[in-house]
Amino acid sequence: MGVNLKVAEERQFSLFSPTDYRYAFQELTPFLTEEAFIKYKIKVEQALIEILVKSKFCPSSAIKELKKISDTISFSELLAEEERTKHDLRALVNLIKKKVTPEVAPFVHFGATSYDIIDTANALRYREATEKVILPELIRLLETWLKLAENESETLQIGRTHGQHALPITFGFAIAQYVDRLGGRIQKLKEAVKNLRGKFSGAVGAYNALRIFFKAPERIEKEILSKLGLTPARVSTQIVPPEPMTDFAHIIISTFGILANFADDIRHLQRPEIGELSEEFTSHQVGSSTMPHKRNPISFENVKSMWKAFMPRMVTVYADQISEHQRDLTNSASQRYLPELLVVFTTAVRRIRRASERLMIDRERMRSNLKISEPLFIAEPLQLLLSFSGYPQAYEYVREKVNQALQEGKSLWEIVRQDKKVKRYLRRFLPHQNALLEKPTLYTGIASLKARKIVKYWKKELIKFK
Amino acid sequence: MGVNLKVAEERQFSLFSPTDYRYAFQELTPFLTEEAFIKYKIKVEQALIEILVKSKFCPSSAIKELKKISDTISFSELLAEEERTKHDLRALVNLIKKKVTPEVAPFVHFGATSYDIIDTANALRYREATEKVILPELIRLLETWLKLAENESETLQIGRTHGQHALPITFGFAIAQYVDRLGGRIQKLKEAVKNLRGKFSGAVGAYNALRIFFKAPERIEKEILSKLGLTPARVSTQIVPPEPMTDFAHIIISTFGILANFADDIRHLQRPEIGELSEEFTSHQVGSSTMPHKRNPISFENVKSMWKAFMPRMVTVYADQISEHQRDLTNSASQRYLPELLVVFTTAVRRIRRASERLMIDRERMRSNLKISEPLFIAEPLQLLLSFSGYPQAYEYVREKVNQALQEGKSLWEIVRQDKKVKRYLRRFLPHQNALLEKPTLYTGIASLKARKIVKYWKKELIKFK
Amino acid sequence: MGVNLKVAEERQFSLFSPTDYRYAFQELTPFLTEEAFIKYKIKVEQALIEILVKSKFCPSSAIKELKKISDTISFSELLAEEERTKHDLRALVNLIKKKVTPEVAPFVHFGATSYDIIDTANALRYREATEKVILPELIRLLETWLKLAENESETLQIGRTHGQHALPITFGFAIAQYVDRLGGRIQKLKEAVKNLRGKFSGAVGAYNALRIFFKAPERIEKEILSKLGLTPARVSTQIVPPEPMTDFAHIIISTFGILANFADDIRHLQRPEIGELSEEFTSHQVGSSTMPHKRNPISFENVKSMWKAFMPRMVTVYADQISEHQRDLTNSASQRYLPELLVVFTTAVRRIRRASERLMIDRERMRSNLKISEPLFIAEPLQLLLSFSGYPQAYEYVREKVNQALQEGKSLWEIVRQDKKVKRYLRRFLPHQNALLEKPTLYTGIASLKARKIVKYWKKELIKFK
Amino acid sequence: MGVNLKVAEERQFSLFSPTDYRYAFQELTPFLTEEAFIKYKIKVEQALIEILVKSKFCPSSAIKELKKISDTISFSELLAEEERTKHDLRALVNLIKKKVTPEVAPFVHFGATSYDIIDTANALRYREATEKVILPELIRLLETWLKLAENESETLQIGRTHGQHALPITFGFAIAQYVDRLGGRIQKLKEAVKNLRGKFSGAVGAYNALRIFFKAPERIEKEILSKLGLTPARVSTQIVPPEPMTDFAHIIISTFGILANFADDIRHLQRPEIGELSEEFTSHQVGSSTMPHKRNPISFENVKSMWKAFMPRMVTVYADQISEHQRDLTNSASQRYLPELLVVFTTAVRRIRRASERLMIDRERMRSNLKISEPLFIAEPLQLLLSFSGYPQAYEYVREKVNQALQEGKSLWEIVRQDKKVKRYLRRFLPHQNALLEKPTLYTGIASLKARKIVKYWKKELIKFK
Repeated sequence: MGVNLKVAEERQFSLFSPTDYRYAFQELTPFLTEEAFIKYKIKVEQALIEILVKSKFCPSSAIKELKKISDTISFSELLAEEERTKHDLRALVNLIKKKVTPEVAPFVHFGATSYDIIDTANALRYREATEKVILPELIRLLETWLKLAENESETLQIGRTHGQHALPITFGFAIAQYVDRLGGRIQKLKEAVKNLRGKFSGAVGAYNALRIFFKAPERIEKEILSKLGLTPARVSTQIVPPEPMTDFAHIIISTFGILANFADDIRHLQRPEIGELSEEFTSHQVGSSTMPHKRNPISFENVKSMWKAFMPRMVTVYADQISEHQRDLTNSASQRYLPELLVVFTTAVRRIRRASERLMIDRERMRSNLKISEPLFIAEPLQLLLSFSGYPQAYEYVREKVNQALQEGKSLWEIVRQDKKVKRYLRRFLPHQNALLEKPTLYTGIASLKARKIVKYWKKELIKFK
Repeated sequence: MGVNLKVAEERQFSLFSPTDYRYAFQELTPFLTEEAFIKYKIKVEQALIEILVKSKFCPSSAIKELKKISDTISFSELLAEEERTKHDLRALVNLIKKKVTPEVAPFVHFGATSYDIIDTANALRYREATEKVILPELIRLLETWLKLAENESETLQIGRTHGQHALPITFGFAIAQYVDRLGGRIQKLKEAVKNLRGKFSGAVGAYNALRIFFKAPERIEKEILSKLGLTPARVSTQIVPPEPMTDFAHIIISTFGILANFADDIRHLQRPEIGELSEEFTSHQVGSSTMPHKRNPISFENVKSMWKAFMPRMVTVYADQISEHQRDLTNSASQRYLPELLVVFTTAVRRIRRASERLMIDRERMRSNLKISEPLFIAEPLQLLLSFSGYPQAYEYVREKVNQALQEGKSLWEIVRQDKKVKRYLRRFLPHQNALLEKPTLYTGIASLKARKIVKYWKKELIKFK
Repeated sequence: MGVNLKVAEERQFSLFSPTDYRYAFQELTPFLTEEAFIKYKIKVEQALIEILVKSKFCPSSAIKELKKISDTISFSELLAEEERTKHDLRALVNLIKKKVTPEVAPFVHFGATSYDIIDTANALRYREATEKVILPELIRLLETWLKLAENESETLQIGRTHGQHALPITFGFAIAQYVDRLGGRIQKLKEAVKNLRGKFSGAVGAYNALRIFFKAPERIEKEILSKLGLTPARVSTQIVPPEPMTDFAHIIISTFGILANFADDIRHLQRPEIGELSEEFTSHQVGSSTMPHKRNPISFENVKSMWKAFMPRMVTVYADQISEHQRDLTNSASQRYLPELLVVFTTAVRRIRRASERLMIDRERMRSNLKISEPLFIAEPLQLLLSFSGYPQAYEYVREKVNQALQEGKSLWEIVRQDKKVKRYLRRFLPHQNALLEKPTLYTGIASLKARKIVKYWKKELIKFK
Repeated sequence: MGVNLKVAEERQFSLFSPTDYRYAFQELTPFLTEEAFIKYKIKVEQALIEILVKSKFCPSSAIKELKKISDTISFSELLAEEERTKHDLRALVNLIKKKVTPEVAPFVHFGATSYDIIDTANALRYREATEKVILPELIRLLETWLKLAENESETLQIGRTHGQHALPITFGFAIAQYVDRLGGRIQKLKEAVKNLRGKFSGAVGAYNALRIFFKAPERIEKEILSKLGLTPARVSTQIVPPEPMTDFAHIIISTFGILANFADDIRHLQRPEIGELSEEFTSHQVGSSTMPHKRNPISFENVKSMWKAFMPRMVTVYADQISEHQRDLTNSASQRYLPELLVVFTTAVRRIRRASERLMIDRERMRSNLKISEPLFIAEPLQLLLSFSGYPQAYEYVREKVNQALQEGKSLWEIVRQDKKVKRYLRRFLPHQNALLEKPTLYTGIASLKARKIVKYWKKELIKFK
């Protein structure tokens, strides 16, 4: 099953799908390529044989014979056999039967239906891909963001709502939101992947075949699957119930949404008029093929674009929940596209992590942007303090004064402080409240404290993740 | 806030949305209409006042004043105020302030931002709608299907894969799959709805406003929300993190998929050539406006159609995960459409339950359909038994004999039994195995046993649901 | 069919769908409400009667009788009859039959199937809604943008790619893109709506019923439809082929995408750090319920949000292309949601027009933003002129100089002009080329000319639209 | 650029995307692989050089030099350069510059921005792929269906609505619907592909670069594009306006919907209880890996599944309509997935054509299925004839008699003929009307005539297609 890498590298250009020629994630190769899938299907056939051996159906040499199979099957053989039978799993079974001794051959795939093998192999490889590659990759991203949230927990930044300046926060606080959202998805992903189920209940789920030979075929199913570390579905048709896989896809896609949200935020903060962040640029990197001065947030654009390409595929997953009676095959081709989602998602995770690690933060710019609306954002504390001091209609009063401040180009606090109408209310303000009005950049609530709390929380959770 | 029902009934025809003029679910009115939403927002304002009273910010009479508010607000006032302010929540706050005493007015909405109220009100009403109406409705459907699975656990039916006859099962076994899938979703829905979060962290999530007056604003948030039975998000921006709501929508939509799958199955089993099921038809009911003989599976068609209308809305939910910085408002209008999903889903649940209750089962027809391929479906046990008895290439052998049986119009078993080539293998078959080959309708595996086991399992779970 | 408007206004709050309680477009009421739909169905029944009269099937008084029907049907009657028959169209037919004279009754709906009426009524009302309301509304938006493009054709603005500064353009040129894209969609919408088809081919499309009475039933279909200004589908099943309606929905949704794109652009140009545009704010308008200083781009956010809510519904339209055999009913409920798309789309068109009309343009700010990167954007002309003058690797040379300029905080042109290495090439530059390098704001290509050309083109087309 | 095919064949198994390892369409390789894309980009650079030569910017030898480029570029070089520059188009330009003479180098990509090349190359290759491969493939499918419609224009079949028996048609008539729908899409696809536009308007669409050297840069753009047989967009930003590509994708996806609809119809007609059609099965083909008797409609299932996988991608296309200002890059990665849609669609077209060619039609079974409801489907003509003869409430009368017929197991006509109540009306029926009632299989309307008319129409159109 070896591949000539040199030629392979050349070959990628003759492909149609960018997933392979451009966005592949090499570490997922052992789980999610077609080759990997075949190996996983063989693993399931092996588990079956082991239980048949244990049940004295076939000679114990069968186990060893099956173990060697992966190395002896050539893909051209497999293709030829599939061409002949028009059935990919039967082709594989036929080849295995050909390559084992005559005593073992009858027990290859014995009592199994194709989807006992396929659904089980999929549950297994998706779980292993997630646990061995995707989760570690997500955890590395979480660690990167944790560090960022921690380091910037005191860095002043304007909080923005509607793209407009609202109230001051810290940059670390903004990042802490992403830490928390991502951490929450990681927890859900761990659960979702554990819920994936295998099956060995035969062609219509009623164990018709196994029941000929075993009194308690459910026990046999359980034994085969536990060889692989899997649990059987409580009940199945020809296929496992689709909901656990649907949940798994949902968690992946909703995690992708967090990456896309982060990407958008960073993109906008890189606008030259805002300039709070920038993506590190290598000295040979090119921004535009015609404008030598361009420096574009391409990593973040790329992740957003990938999300646009893959998020809608959830519609396919939902459509695949519907399978007529004991199953129809209209979810077969469509399900073959699920590995791609995992691959591109993981590529996006890594890309956003690397770009996050290289993020250049302009703290001065954050502070100077904050200053733009400093004269205004005491509007909120002012109306609250006036209200608290008993001034009626404080909100409306302050709104009018804001308009006046904007028109006269003066500071809101200046105008209000000189307004006799409110003087007696202002006197009731406490010192720390006055301090806020004098120095509005203090008005960050508990932003930095909260950032640190969230960091602490997820550092603890991280230990459990590993 | 009363509504003239007589006129209302007439009025429904002047609407654009079929959700209101055709597919409404009355029991959800107290939770999911615009009016209900306003009342829930007032409830949140009330919780705030209670904590402010407790903190000695305002007179304890405030609590009583706020409690009366819902009854004194007229919608025309509210519309007029929103027209003036272009801000729906501010309009509500202004009206409340107008209707309370001057001592209380300054503390209405004190320290809150609109989305403290809105996101909290949404979490609350979606949870209550789910717990009080949607879950009970789902449980009733589960009970209906449980009964069906139990009653029909022994009813022979052909298992169908690819729409083709595969192997025999029982009709109760087929229904048990749906019981199990639906039961699993109900469990997930209960979890999802408990994960919905409120917030009271102010305009950018950093408690800027509350921090002016309280050392530990997170405690205040916790107290307000616990008045409503809610938990705050661990960290929020202007809005709660979107993932819990995304998960909630996902569970609803993936449950809808199960209804759609069931609907398709039943529709096809109602085809006159199959005729195993039919939807009860009232004596006045009309199938076609021109063909007086038509009897159509309209309830099941309707549910499938509804799924087609609402499943794609998950794309909106995923798009709404993205909100720039401390939030942008591009998820405001789109989120207003979420209640509709819950309403139409619940209507579909009830409709499929009622149609399931009235389902007419033609057990004779199930048996006679099974007979069509009876001569063939011993192919599987035959190849397995031959394999087991040591016959090489049993699968290929049986496949050829199937072709012969089809061409000669003979029974497969007859042909094989007379084939000298296999005679010595046949002798090794055990009596219960021979019985199967003689009477293929015995070949149902553990279908009826499994149906009963699943029924038993979910009956136990049902008790926990309630 | 009158509605008590006073009560109706109150009633809107007891609805589930925001389309009716919040985003309705009143001028579409005569076409797209349930009431309107019923009236259109009656119109189709009228057209049928007229042809039956012409064919001497029924007395000519029938025409007058049918014309009065709309006014005499009460909705409570209709609801009661539908409750009884479970068939909305048959309920309507029964009521009409009841209200006409016994001589006419047998010829109401004579030879028709429900979908002869429904599909024809839909084609008619969607066409009329489009031609009478939606297209005029779109044309008004086009005129608004045309004026904007014309007025601002000379207003300097930085062109932005990747959110980064690229090269100078004019604001009118940027708007001209939207003019052109919108104009193109208007042309397509006019075509799409003309392609909508009616049918009168009976229950399975083969004119089975009409053929009993007419030699050439296709001629009868043509006559009925031409009464309504419609063309029959070339061939139909129980329903018209779905593609023309699919195309119509596609044009609406792809036009919606242009609005969403425009909305995003304007939102970002309203960020305070950019500040080139702002949405006019009325003196009583509220931006935030807690921050009296907030001024948010709510109209543009709203339109983007609406697009997110409605764009995914195209998936439903595509799913509805599939209808089994001569039709199944799984597209019935889902198609009832199509009018909502038209309503909300038209609301978005109007909203974006009004916000465009009130757009406040800060030309000074556009110019000052442009200045930020002025020193850099001669990079492009410089590398081209150097290339043209024969300097090898000009792109790489300029890229290095850009880095130097950024590091030394100097102007790129200054650095290059003093670089001996390139002196002899610089001498070859022509005067108008040197002028560009001296005054980079001249480097707008043909932006203003193109803006005016596009305006001129669409002004001409506009005349054809009307 | 050669590929070692032997190794390549092995290699396909190490891919993630089934588009390449399973569903590729070889004839599209010259247009839609990454390699093809590069060649098309070079073609566009060639066209630019030709115009620069014509304008005396560079020596005429440049044309020849550029023509050889494709053969001299190795992908490993290209990958290395892209790794260095992080910019795929600049990497290509750098390589070309390296491989031409120093006199030509400065004029490679002269005045162009990446998307002048990319958008133009895409328009060109999508148009050529469509015109040279996709349209011919669609036309072949149309021809197959035309033949089927023609051959079966007289084959009696029951028309089905709601999966229930409605009225008789002919099988050719049913196919004629598909002929007409497909023919209509082919016409639209031809238009859509002609509307694809190129551009050469530079980095922000204002021809900033070209304007330095040319008075009328739009003329230069036109000349370059006309070399390639393309028309420029009326106005562009950095990219061409997205709507023409959106329309193109819509036509492909809506054509895919027709294939999916056809596939569903055929699948259901293959159910053993219906048995009107079957997919030809080769003697070695395997239906199930465990049930040797299974014969599954896999081609039709596959096409339906493909539609589920690709239809939702339209959401991506709509999302890609939105590009901020003069463009952001969030549509770059997502657009790379468009070729896959074309590839898989074309594979589906071919697959459904081949399966259609091999379709086995059981005309006897069609007739016997028809007989099932023969006694009932005179219900429609009966109620019409009674109405026409003046019997009041004929529809209700016949509905009751249908119920009676069903309960008593008698023929409807028998019951009615013996009912004195209607005798005098029956006497008014004309001979050809009585014939219908006696022999309901005559009740096919103009099904066969219409089938032939549609065939005739599209045979004429076919000539224009070629």
